[in-house]
Amino acid sequence: MQDMMMTEQLSISAIMLHAEQVAADVQIVSVLSDGTRHRYTYAEAFARSRRLANALDRLEIPPGARVGTLAWNDYRHFELYYAVPCSGRVCHTINPRLFPEQVAYIIRHAEDSVLFLDPQFIPLLEQLHTELTGVRHYIALCPAQDLPASILPNLLSYEALLESESDLYEWPELEERTPSGLCYTSGTTGNPKGVLYSHRSTVLHCLASNMTDVMGLRAQDVVLPIVPMFHVNAWGIPYSAAMIGAKLVLPGPKAGDGMTLARLITEEQVSYALGVPTVWLALAQYLEQSASHIFSLRRAVSGGAACPLALIERMARHGVTLEVGWGMTETSPLGAYNRHQPWYDALSAEERGRQMIKAGRQVFGVQLRIVDEQGHELPRNGSTFGALQARGLWVCAGYFGGKLSQGWFDTGDVATLDPRGYLQITDRTKDVIKSGGEWISSIDIENAMMAHPQVAEATVIGVAHPRWSERPLLLVVPRRDCSPNADELLGYLKDKVAKWWLPDACVLLSELPHTATGKVSKKDLRVAFRDYQWPAR
Amino acid sequence: MQDMMMTEQLSISAIMLHAEQVAADVQIVSVLSDGTRHRYTYAEAFARSRRLANALDRLEIPPGARVGTLAWNDYRHFELYYAVPCSGRVCHTINPRLFPEQVAYIIRHAEDSVLFLDPQFIPLLEQLHTELTGVRHYIALCPAQDLPASILPNLLSYEALLESESDLYEWPELEERTPSGLCYTSGTTGNPKGVLYSHRSTVLHCLASNMTDVMGLRAQDVVLPIVPMFHVNAWGIPYSAAMIGAKLVLPGPKAGDGMTLARLITEEQVSYALGVPTVWLALAQYLEQSASHIFSLRRAVSGGAACPLALIERMARHGVTLEVGWGMTETSPLGAYNRHQPWYDALSAEERGRQMIKAGRQVFGVQLRIVDEQGHELPRNGSTFGALQARGLWVCAGYFGGKLSQGWFDTGDVATLDPRGYLQITDRTKDVIKSGGEWISSIDIENAMMAHPQVAEATVIGVAHPRWSERPLLLVVPRRDCSPNADELLGYLKDKVAKWWLPDACVLLSELPHTATGKVSKKDLRVAFRDYQWPAR
Repeated sequence: MQDMMMTEQLSISAIMLHAEQVAADVQIVSVLSDGTRHRYTYAEAFARSRRLANALDRLEIPPGARVGTLAWNDYRHFELYYAVPCSGRVCHTINPRLFPEQVAYIIRHAEDSVLFLDPQFIPLLEQLHTELTGVRHYIALCPAQDLPASILPNLLSYEALLESESDLYEWPELEERTPSGLCYTSGTTGNPKGVLYSHRSTVLHCLASNMTDVMGLRAQDVVLPIVPMFHVNAWGIPYSAAMIGAKLVLPGPKAGDGMTLARLITEEQVSYALGVPTVWLALAQYLEQSASHIFSLRRAVSGGAACPLALIERMARHGVTLEVGWGMTETSPLGAYNRHQPWYDALSAEERGRQMIKAGRQVFGVQLRIVDEQGHELPRNGSTFGALQARGLWVCAGYFGGKLSQGWFDTGDVATLDPRGYLQITDRTKDVIKSGGEWISSIDIENAMMAHPQVAEATVIGVAHPRWSERPLLLVVPRRDCSPNADELLGYLKDKVAKWWLPDACVLLSELPHTATGKVSKKDLRVAFRDYQWPAR
Repeated sequence: MQDMMMTEQLSISAIMLHAEQVAADVQIVSVLSDGTRHRYTYAEAFARSRRLANALDRLEIPPGARVGTLAWNDYRHFELYYAVPCSGRVCHTINPRLFPEQVAYIIRHAEDSVLFLDPQFIPLLEQLHTELTGVRHYIALCPAQDLPASILPNLLSYEALLESESDLYEWPELEERTPSGLCYTSGTTGNPKGVLYSHRSTVLHCLASNMTDVMGLRAQDVVLPIVPMFHVNAWGIPYSAAMIGAKLVLPGPKAGDGMTLARLITEEQVSYALGVPTVWLALAQYLEQSASHIFSLRRAVSGGAACPLALIERMARHGVTLEVGWGMTETSPLGAYNRHQPWYDALSAEERGRQMIKAGRQVFGVQLRIVDEQGHELPRNGSTFGALQARGLWVCAGYFGGKLSQGWFDTGDVATLDPRGYLQITDRTKDVIKSGGEWISSIDIENAMMAHPQVAEATVIGVAHPRWSERPLLLVVPRRDCSPNADELLGYLKDKVAKWWLPDACVLLSELPHTATGKVSKKDLRVAFRDYQWPAR
């Protein structure tokens, strides 16, 4: 038996139509590469998306074709986010920070037939283009007069492309499982792998994000995605903000430094912002050094890496509730979100701290579970930890060009789950330290160490040990102008983590190696410290 | 081309599983017919739903069969809300306030194979049962010892039915368009018509409801649906509260009077409640007469009928933000919701009042438009009014047993839409007053009249007029112990509505006729005043 409801499909076009009907005059502000700001409205943005869809038709990009983007967060990238999927193509956002050979691999693997790129990436593509025989057109995201001379074949300016097109376009009615977006995840081993999102998964992800206990955007929010639009669709914001009709601030190529951020937040009255922990660290440092304020910013979310409690507390002193989220490219990304609840206020300072750094409560639409090495589900008691698995409405069942499997997806994280559905990540499976047969949570140790006033960055890796098979080694980058003592740092941890988790030694370094997505590369550190000799006790 | 996301289905079972994982120990409180309160947790509720599913299997109720309920808002009804659809049957909630012949018609038309009923409805069913040959089992929602002697065939007590069952049950994996619920709407003409919801439409409706700019429930809310569970699934609350893990307070059979409500709200610390305008009127009156308070209640929603501004202002004096929602059985019901936005505070008192009584902003997932008599779309300018049409993810495409049509659904309302997507209902199509070729908004006049201190209830109908074809006639029920003057009441409206909308006469009545769902029956009034003679001018 079938229901008798309409057969309306979940579609990104419906988000666009809704925003036009509820937020036609709401602004989208973009910071350009010269630092000036471009501003227009949702109505103007979507009119240009229609021109772009006409242009894609004229370029004879077929339905389902991958349209690559190498671009920062700005209005032209936003137009691509709608024109490409709503006209039936796949918007393939590429991380320009990857190694050139990875960028080339991804473009070839995705079989991109056209590339839209910020002019600054033209030299990168000039270096690669002979390998990219499938790319029929290169479109530089700039006006015709800014188009540089280039050896790229068929290089056009975006504005010249749009100029001759009509802003009338009939968006096709697409089946909801039509692919809409493609994003590659660069693991630390093997080639990057592509996750192919659909209109359905994207819209469901937005609806869940906009629930009050998750991101909970409102029409009057001003939303600043500092997280790049090539990083899991900027955590869905270009779609979820439009769904609710909130003002968007797109920070362009130079979003990283504290002063630029603080000014942008205040001048555009940003109320909610999204970024990785290092962004919030830079912002907090600037605010403290300059004794300035960011009154409009009420909430921010930190994702992409573990967020130390010290940073949450520091942002709180600036009036910002820093919330933690958890997800991966394979989970669209939202799997858990730590929206602060009134009951946190009733906790002791210590318990509140422990609650706030959790990766969040699992979001309706995604199921999470933890399993042991044999794949048996482990108890959700907040203390047992195991390998984290996910399944759900916006979780991938396989990688682009690979096979589908509908079971649980292995996240590669080690975690606990508690009876209220809160997730706490304790490690990456590959980074886990196994000492005397037991697992040690390196993230807990790192969090505790990051609270030390002389520590800029801290990480813990497992190093071979004659008696325990592995023991934790603490690696610390001191803050500028600080020279902490290694033994003092180890002593600081004594009442903060389980005794047998205490690292056996501490090494001070001037910097840590990072991956292209900004995470500490423990793989490189393990190689560097492979032959480390434990100090005699 | 297909995406590579998991093929997870939208299902009510997923809501249940999620609530068990995030809110196992959160309470569901029910007021019983003797006034005492029953309390248990989500975990206990769903354990009993599993027993019930086993019982339905044992009774050999086949997949897709309709399971009728005649019940107030309480925990047993809640258990049915999950056990029935999650085991593949259809939960058919019946309005016991309808005329007995309508109840019989609905049960026959739905082909209910089993009826679950509160014991107080046994006499009603005894009167009807010989016509209900398809009903194989009657289950009274009570313990075995409370089961009255009855002529109903196969009458069992619910508790006896559950007692022998296991609380282990494997919920089947259902295709998301599997029907989950059936609710009849009793139009003023013709037979009641059934709307058949699916797992998909129900879950999507919940996700949208829980967005911050809509109902926006949070885990720490305490939610009181005063709207009956037989009235469009209590506006989705038994599902949307579970999706977020909020405490539920189910008010049982006697929820209507102000004192009972005020006590329940305070004792259970209710923070959000849902009901029709008359409920809020009763509550406000009680609070004023008794000089008592309801500090916990922050927000409430008024739906099912137009909400006068006077009532919103009155509730505001008691600390409650009274929000307005719009929907119908055919729209699951949510089509628009007026979540108060910070920008309302910047409006003048008059503009703010006009904004607050709007039926709300259209909710993502439902498209609304207004059309003229030829079906052409009219401008969304906030002043042009036309026949309101809807389509969307949880809008019905036809009635149970009838034909499907995927176009726009005619709501039967007359409305305006504005450039921010706000809906204002001005009339029912069948109640519209057409004077000299122009439409008059009776709801605007009624709203203005309801603000008069001596007016308990006011309505406006069109009556034949020799010159203008129709003119508005104002009908007023004075407040107790008040004797307003008809001319004075008409004079009160002079600066509040357009001059040509002013009713030509006013008649004072001791009461107005109401439909079974509590709305003023304008149809009956038009019959009663068919031969009304306009006073000579």
